[in-house]
Amino acid sequence: MEPIVDIIDILGTIAFAISGVITATKKRMDLFGILIVATVTSVGGGTLRDLLIGKSPVTWLLNTTFVYTILVSTVVGVIFRKQLHYVRKSLFLFDTIGIALYTITGVQMGLLIDLNPVICVALGTITACFGGVIRDILCNEIPVIFRKEIYASACILGGVVYIGLIHLGVTAGLTAVMAGITVVVVRTLAVVYELQLPSIYTQAEREQNN
Amino acid sequence: MEPIVDIIDILGTIAFAISGVITATKKRMDLFGILIVATVTSVGGGTLRDLLIGKSPVTWLLNTTFVYTILVSTVVGVIFRKQLHYVRKSLFLFDTIGIALYTITGVQMGLLIDLNPVICVALGTITACFGGVIRDILCNEIPVIFRKEIYASACILGGVVYIGLIHLGVTAGLTAVMAGITVVVVRTLAVVYELQLPSIYTQAEREQNN
Amino acid sequence: MEPIVDIIDILGTIAFAISGVITATKKRMDLFGILIVATVTSVGGGTLRDLLIGKSPVTWLLNTTFVYTILVSTVVGVIFRKQLHYVRKSLFLFDTIGIALYTITGVQMGLLIDLNPVICVALGTITACFGGVIRDILCNEIPVIFRKEIYASACILGGVVYIGLIHLGVTAGLTAVMAGITVVVVRTLAVVYELQLPSIYTQAEREQNN
Repeated sequence: MEPIVDIIDILGTIAFAISGVITATKKRMDLFGILIVATVTSVGGGTLRDLLIGKSPVTWLLNTTFVYTILVSTVVGVIFRKQLHYVRKSLFLFDTIGIALYTITGVQMGLLIDLNPVICVALGTITACFGGVIRDILCNEIPVIFRKEIYASACILGGVVYIGLIHLGVTAGLTAVMAGITVVVVRTLAVVYELQLPSIYTQAEREQNN
Repeated sequence: MEPIVDIIDILGTIAFAISGVITATKKRMDLFGILIVATVTSVGGGTLRDLLIGKSPVTWLLNTTFVYTILVSTVVGVIFRKQLHYVRKSLFLFDTIGIALYTITGVQMGLLIDLNPVICVALGTITACFGGVIRDILCNEIPVIFRKEIYASACILGGVVYIGLIHLGVTAGLTAVMAGITVVVVRTLAVVYELQLPSIYTQAEREQNN
Repeated sequence: MEPIVDIIDILGTIAFAISGVITATKKRMDLFGILIVATVTSVGGGTLRDLLIGKSPVTWLLNTTFVYTILVSTVVGVIFRKQLHYVRKSLFLFDTIGIALYTITGVQMGLLIDLNPVICVALGTITACFGGVIRDILCNEIPVIFRKEIYASACILGGVVYIGLIHLGVTAGLTAVMAGITVVVVRTLAVVYELQLPSIYTQAEREQNN
């Protein structure tokens, strides 16, 4: 693994862990609970992917860098939890880079074991998104990405770009960069312009919900 | 796999996916959330079974028929979600055939790796029921089959019939048919006559709950 | 496995199953729901550990003693559910012995496949604590150990003692006994003196929550 990828991977882990700390402290969890939620947010997506494809032991058991990064992020996140909104933009950047990288890793691992391209895109999306899904379930919430995030769509598009470029014969390195940029750009545009998936509900249905 | 089984399998997948769409739209999820809930309802039980017995990659990663069937069912289900109650009886039929088939598949996979018959019945029940359990957890509900469905009991009985007939030397084909019929008949009778498991709670306990 | 360990293992399984029955009956689940919740409370932590390290089929599929013990415990627990608070102290004892044993088993299995000591402690804690986490998720609650139990800290300390003594060259048997005693003593002291993890929340934050 290239040093630059290592650094991005760690930034992603930090961003996910901090998002776990934010959700867990809102629920007034104790330190242990916060640590667990930070951990599943960071490693949950990759763990689910590893289980589905049969990679064992799962990745984070084999590399303590993840555990230590999460531990430090959690402690720092808890101490500075009131200041976290000052670094909201940096966190958004890390988080977006994190899901881009996780998407690519997931797609690549699917291709390595010769899975169908559609399944590979699903694996990339699971890797990027299911840490957050498990986080929300542990916090007794309906997963936020099921309701208002364009997040998952950015990962799906990134995965499709990856598969497409590889099929066109583009090198793996350039493909990864282009797919990553796709995720980052789509997600950033979505947040800047407040894009959401088109609502399937009529006005009447939405009011009924309120 | 016989073509007839293929068709039943696809009907089961459709019924489960539609039940996911119904639950997810009640929670006003967006398209992505609905798709994920439809997917876990369809493939969740089989995935959990595959993980428990160590079959990897899990089944749905190896056959895109499931993914495409779920995708189409979700889109059709969303478009016609207001008309779904007109086809309620057909859906009930598909769903019942689906759990019958899933129960048999689960029992068979347990027998194939020489697990104890009791464990095989448990695997069949998990295959048929846990898609719905994960669906309800993702929707932040206590799983409906833990509270008022005879659903699981039909699967357990079907599994017991399967194990019993195989032990008596009946052929695998006939055994599967008889076990499947058991699930369908028990479930249908239960719904027609509104059977429930006998309540273990006293009147006082039930009132306390209200 | 030594007969004495077998007995402790069964006592632990009983205690976990009963804790599942207590939680599930509070939610007015039916018999099937109670049985499932009792089962996941008993075997959930070990199952998650087995999945993470790639041990398959998972342990409880290979030994029906667990299933029968849980079945009997559930039936007895449901019948005598109003009398359960008379045996609360015995249950606490079983439960504490159970988590001690589960912690040790988890740490040992990590060491067997040469995982990093920190990861082994995590595996021990997961084995002991995640049955209860899954129980609470199935019952639609935020896991209780994320909010007010020192439970997990006892397992972490027990795991650290185990790793420490093994590194000092102490025999496996004595190490297991010392680690087990650590878990039991820390947990008992914590309950007797009502110890909690230090709160990270200010008075203002706590009030905001109420």
